[in-house]
Amino acid sequence: MTDYRAPLRDIRFVRDELHDFQGHYKNLPGCEDATPDTLNAVLEEAARFAEQVIAPLRRVGDQEGCTWTPEGVKTPTGFKEAYRQFVEGGWPLLAQAVEHGGQGLPESFGMCVSELMAEANWAWCMYPGLSQGAVRTLAAHGSDEQKRLYMQPLTTGQWTGTMCLTEPQCGTDLGLLRTKAEPEADGSYKISGTKMFISAGEHDLAENIVHIVLARLPDAPAGTKGISLFIVPKFLPDGQGKIAERNAVSCGSIEHKMGIHGNATCVMNFDGARGFLIGPPNKGLSCMFTFMNVARLGTAMQGLAHAEVAFQGGIRYARERLQMRALSGAKAPDLPADPIIFHPDVRRMLLTMKAFAEGGRAMLYFAAKQADIFLRSKDAKAREAADTMLSLLTPIAKGFLSEVGFESANHGVQIYGGHGYIAEHGMEQNVRDSRISCLYEGTTGIQSLDLLGRKVLMSRGDVLKPFGEMVKQYCKANGSNKRLKPFVEALTSHGKELADITMKVGMKALKDREEVGAAGVDYLMYCGYFCLAYFWADIARVASAKLESGTDEKAFYKAKYKTAEFYFERILPRTRYHVEAMLSGADNLMSLANEDFDLGY
Amino acid sequence: MTDYRAPLRDIRFVRDELHDFQGHYKNLPGCEDATPDTLNAVLEEAARFAEQVIAPLRRVGDQEGCTWTPEGVKTPTGFKEAYRQFVEGGWPLLAQAVEHGGQGLPESFGMCVSELMAEANWAWCMYPGLSQGAVRTLAAHGSDEQKRLYMQPLTTGQWTGTMCLTEPQCGTDLGLLRTKAEPEADGSYKISGTKMFISAGEHDLAENIVHIVLARLPDAPAGTKGISLFIVPKFLPDGQGKIAERNAVSCGSIEHKMGIHGNATCVMNFDGARGFLIGPPNKGLSCMFTFMNVARLGTAMQGLAHAEVAFQGGIRYARERLQMRALSGAKAPDLPADPIIFHPDVRRMLLTMKAFAEGGRAMLYFAAKQADIFLRSKDAKAREAADTMLSLLTPIAKGFLSEVGFESANHGVQIYGGHGYIAEHGMEQNVRDSRISCLYEGTTGIQSLDLLGRKVLMSRGDVLKPFGEMVKQYCKANGSNKRLKPFVEALTSHGKELADITMKVGMKALKDREEVGAAGVDYLMYCGYFCLAYFWADIARVASAKLESGTDEKAFYKAKYKTAEFYFERILPRTRYHVEAMLSGADNLMSLANEDFDLGY
Repeated sequence: MTDYRAPLRDIRFVRDELHDFQGHYKNLPGCEDATPDTLNAVLEEAARFAEQVIAPLRRVGDQEGCTWTPEGVKTPTGFKEAYRQFVEGGWPLLAQAVEHGGQGLPESFGMCVSELMAEANWAWCMYPGLSQGAVRTLAAHGSDEQKRLYMQPLTTGQWTGTMCLTEPQCGTDLGLLRTKAEPEADGSYKISGTKMFISAGEHDLAENIVHIVLARLPDAPAGTKGISLFIVPKFLPDGQGKIAERNAVSCGSIEHKMGIHGNATCVMNFDGARGFLIGPPNKGLSCMFTFMNVARLGTAMQGLAHAEVAFQGGIRYARERLQMRALSGAKAPDLPADPIIFHPDVRRMLLTMKAFAEGGRAMLYFAAKQADIFLRSKDAKAREAADTMLSLLTPIAKGFLSEVGFESANHGVQIYGGHGYIAEHGMEQNVRDSRISCLYEGTTGIQSLDLLGRKVLMSRGDVLKPFGEMVKQYCKANGSNKRLKPFVEALTSHGKELADITMKVGMKALKDREEVGAAGVDYLMYCGYFCLAYFWADIARVASAKLESGTDEKAFYKAKYKTAEFYFERILPRTRYHVEAMLSGADNLMSLANEDFDLGY
Repeated sequence: MTDYRAPLRDIRFVRDELHDFQGHYKNLPGCEDATPDTLNAVLEEAARFAEQVIAPLRRVGDQEGCTWTPEGVKTPTGFKEAYRQFVEGGWPLLAQAVEHGGQGLPESFGMCVSELMAEANWAWCMYPGLSQGAVRTLAAHGSDEQKRLYMQPLTTGQWTGTMCLTEPQCGTDLGLLRTKAEPEADGSYKISGTKMFISAGEHDLAENIVHIVLARLPDAPAGTKGISLFIVPKFLPDGQGKIAERNAVSCGSIEHKMGIHGNATCVMNFDGARGFLIGPPNKGLSCMFTFMNVARLGTAMQGLAHAEVAFQGGIRYARERLQMRALSGAKAPDLPADPIIFHPDVRRMLLTMKAFAEGGRAMLYFAAKQADIFLRSKDAKAREAADTMLSLLTPIAKGFLSEVGFESANHGVQIYGGHGYIAEHGMEQNVRDSRISCLYEGTTGIQSLDLLGRKVLMSRGDVLKPFGEMVKQYCKANGSNKRLKPFVEALTSHGKELADITMKVGMKALKDREEVGAAGVDYLMYCGYFCLAYFWADIARVASAKLESGTDEKAFYKAKYKTAEFYFERILPRTRYHVEAMLSGADNLMSLANEDFDLGY
C-alpha cells in the first residue's frame, strides 16, 4: 500500500472553511506566525513525507515486525532511516513550545500533520507519538533540572519516550500496581518491577529512551492514591545531558500481536533501575492524566486514520474491479462486467467509510481547536469552556471513532471480497492494525464509564450543555434553510432525546449503580452518532452556502452535502437501537448468576 | 487454546428437547439405526477427538501455516497425523450414504459432529470438509464409471476433494471465467487455466486430490450458460481406482492470508490437465449449486463455531481476571479486585456471544433437520416444504451467522482488553480466522441478493410464508403463557413488520431494481435477528415448560430463559436500525457520481 494520498483538500476544507482555524489563530497568543502560507507549505511537505517516506514502510513493518535480541530490539527495515529523516526535518519540533526549542505552531496544526503520518503508517508513528506524552508530563510536572536534562533531546526526537503503566495484573485498574520505588541517599529512587504492553519500550531508532514509570513508594497508601511518577532513562544522562551509564532497565521480550507489528510492544524489566520522582509523591495518577487525554485523542485519530485508509483502498478497488452487471442494467456495456462501484451495497460501504473519515476529521479538528484554547488562551472563561468541551469530547472521540474506524477497516476488506483477506492489498492489515485502538488507552467500556459515570452523571448533565447549546444555535440559525431542514429536525429530536435518556439513566443509576455500566457503551455510541451528526450538518451548511454563492468546485461541495444526507438517513438511525438497548435496564445483564453462564458442556 | 470443551449438553438440548431429532429420525427412511444410544456414544467420541486431537493444533496451525515447496504443500506439524486418525476412525463415513460405503447416519447428526470439529479447529476441518462438496457433486451428477473410480476413496477420506471455481478476474461473477476444456479423442478433456483461492488445493494429508473444476467448452455460449463441470484428479486413477499417472495440475503458490493459516489457499495451474466432464455440457453452474448450498450451511456453521470459541475464551477470562470493583460495591471483597464477570459491560459481551452461539445452534440444527427431510423423505410434499424452508434459511444462516460470528469473535478479544490483542490467548486468531466467513461462499452482500432478490421478491414473498406460519403457530400456542408473552408480542410485531417491509421494498424495486441491492444487507440482517428471535422464543418455551414441570437442572433452564430475555431486550432491537436504513431508499446510495467519491486530495 504505497499509494496513500494525503487528503489535503479535505483537511483545508475542515480547517479553513468549517472551523476557521485562521480566525481562531489570530486570537490565540503565540500563533501569530501561523499564517496560511506557512501552514500550507509545511502541510504539503508533511504530505510528501507521509506519502513517500513512511507509507511505503507500512507493509514491510507488518511483514518483518520487530525482532528481540539480547542487544536490544531491531525495528523493521527502513524504520530507522525514516526516523532519521523525520528528526533531521525538524518534524518533532513543529508544535512544541518555543521555550523548549520548538517551533510553537498551534497544537491543532500539529494534529493535521499527525493525521497524515497516522494514515501513512500508524505503527511507525507510535515511536515519535509516544514521546509526546513524556514531553507533556515533563513540561507540566518536571523540575527545572529534569527539564534541563530531558526536554531538549525529547522535543528534537533525538531521544524517545514511553509511558510505563500496565503490569501483568493490572491495566485498567492501576490501583493494583506493584512496581516499587525505594528512595536512595542521593535523592533518586531504585525502581523494581515488571511493566508490560510498553509500546516503543525498546528499539533502535534513537540513542536513548526515557521511560515515564508509575511505581509505589515504600510507605504509599494502597490503591490509586499511592502511585507516584518517575523518570527512568535507558541511559542515565551526565550533568551536560549527554548519555552516560546504562540503567538497569531492559526489554525482556516483545509481544506477538494481531497487528501494528512494526511497533515493538515490550515487557520491560526494572531491576533496581535509577529513577527520579516527577511531581509530588503519591500523585502520580493525576499527573498522568495530563498525558492520558493527549493519548486518547491520539487514539481517536487512529480511528480516523484507519477509516481513511480503508476508504482509499476501497474506492480504488471499487473502480477497477469488474464483477456482475448493475441490477438496473449494464452501466459499462463496453467492459465484460460493471465496475463494482455501481453496486449499491458497495456504495453503502464506501459512503460509510467516507462519512466516518471525513466526519471524524471534523470532530477531531474541532477538539484540537478546543485544545489550542485550553493551552493558550489568556481568557480564563474561554479556557474553562474549552476544557469542559474537551472533557466531553475526549471519551466520545476515543471510544466512538476507534469503533467506527475498526468497522470501516472491515468494510475496506469486504469491498475486496476474498481478495480483502489476502495480505497483498493491505486491507486485512488495516483491520488488524486498527483492532488495538478499541483496547488501549482505555477500552471502549472504560471510555463509556468515563463519559457517562465520571462526566455526565457526576456533573448532573452540565458537561453536555455547551455541546447541546452549540447544536441548538445551529438549529436556530438554519431552521428556515430548506436544504438544511432535515438535518435541523433530526438534530433537534436527537438533542431532546439525549437529554431525556440522560435523565432516565441517571434516575435508574440512583437506585442501582450498575445501570451506569449497563448503559455505558450504548450511551457512548449514541453520543458519538449524535456528535458526528452535528458535524455533518455543519459540513452541509458550509457546502450549501458555497453551492449557493457559486464555486468552481461544485462537485466537491455537492459530494459533501450528499454524504451528509447519507449519514443522516443511513447511519444516524443506529441511535434507534442504542436507545432501546440502554433503556432496557441492567437486570437483563446482571440477573444471571456467574456460575450459570456456561452449563452447556 | 487447548482448552476447548465440546458443548455436549447444549447440543443434546437443541437436538432432543428443542427439535426432537429422535421423533424426526423415526419417520425418516434409512435413519432407523440412529438410536439415542448410538448417537450419544458417537458424539462423545467425536468430542474427544475434537478436544484432544485437533483443538491442540489450532494454534500451531496459525503459527506455522502451510509451506509451499516444489514437491507440494506441507501442512503444519500434527495436521497429517490428526487426519490419519480421522480417516482410521472412520469419521468421514459417518453421514455418507450406505451405498457409497458410508454409515448412513442422518445428515443432521453429521452436523452435530461437524460442529465440534469446526469449533476445535476450523482451518484443519476445511481439508475433510471440502471433500463433502466433491462427494455430493459426484453422487448427484457423476456417471457410474466416475462413481466407481472416485466415490469410495473420497468418502473414506483416503483422497480429498476441492471445488475450483474462482479465477483472478472472477469470484462472484462466474460468467467471466476463462478456464478452457478441449475435447480429446478418448472422451476426456484437456483443461487449461488458472484457478485461485482454492482451499485445500494442495497438501500432504492424502495420497490424491480430486478437483471439481468449472471450465468452458470450445463452443460454449458466453456467460454463466457456457460453464461445464469437470473432474480433474491430481493423480489419474487406473482402471482399478489405484493412483497412477501424475496429472498436469499443480499448485503455483499459496496465499498469505489474514487467518485460517493452517489451511492452504492455493493458486492452481491447469496446464492441459486431463479432466472428465460431469453432468451435461454447459450446465456446470446448476450442478454446482448442489454443492454450494452445502458449503453455505457449512460457512454458517463457521459463524457459530467462532461465537462458541469466543464465548468459551471470554467466560474463562472473565472469571479469572481481577480488575476494578463493581460499581455497586465489592463483590469479591477477599480478592484484590472483582473478577470482571461482575461488570455489566463484560456481561453484555458474554451474553451477546452466548445468545449468538446457542441461538445459532438452534437455527442451524433446524436447517439440518430440513436437509434430512429434503434428502430422505418419501413424502414429496414434505420434501418440497423442506426445500422451501432451506432455500430461505441458507442465505440467512450464511450471511447473518457469519456476521454475528465475527462480531462475537471481536467481543472475545474485547473482554481480554489489551491481552486479547496478543497471540497467546487465541482470541485474536479467532477474529482473523472468522473474518473469511463473511467473504467466501458468497459475501454477505451476495447472500442478501440471493435472499431478497432471487428468493423473496421472485416468489412474491411466498418463500417467507412457511417460516411466518411457524412463527404464527408459536404465537397462537403460547400467547396466553405469561412467561412467553413478551416473546410472543415481539415476534408478532416483527412478523407483521417484515411482511410490511417486504411489500414496501418490493414496490420500490418495481420502479428501480437498485432498491434490491440498496436494501439487501439490512434486509438480510433484519431476517437474521427475526429468525434468531423465533429460535430463542422456542428455547424459552422448552425451558419454561421444564422449569414448571420440575427438573434437577434448574440452573440450566433458567439460564436459557434469561438468555432469551437478554436477546429480546438487548439484541433484537437492532432491527429498529435496519428498518430505517433499508426503507431510506436507494437514492442516498446511488446519487453521488462515481468520480465524485474522492475529491478530498
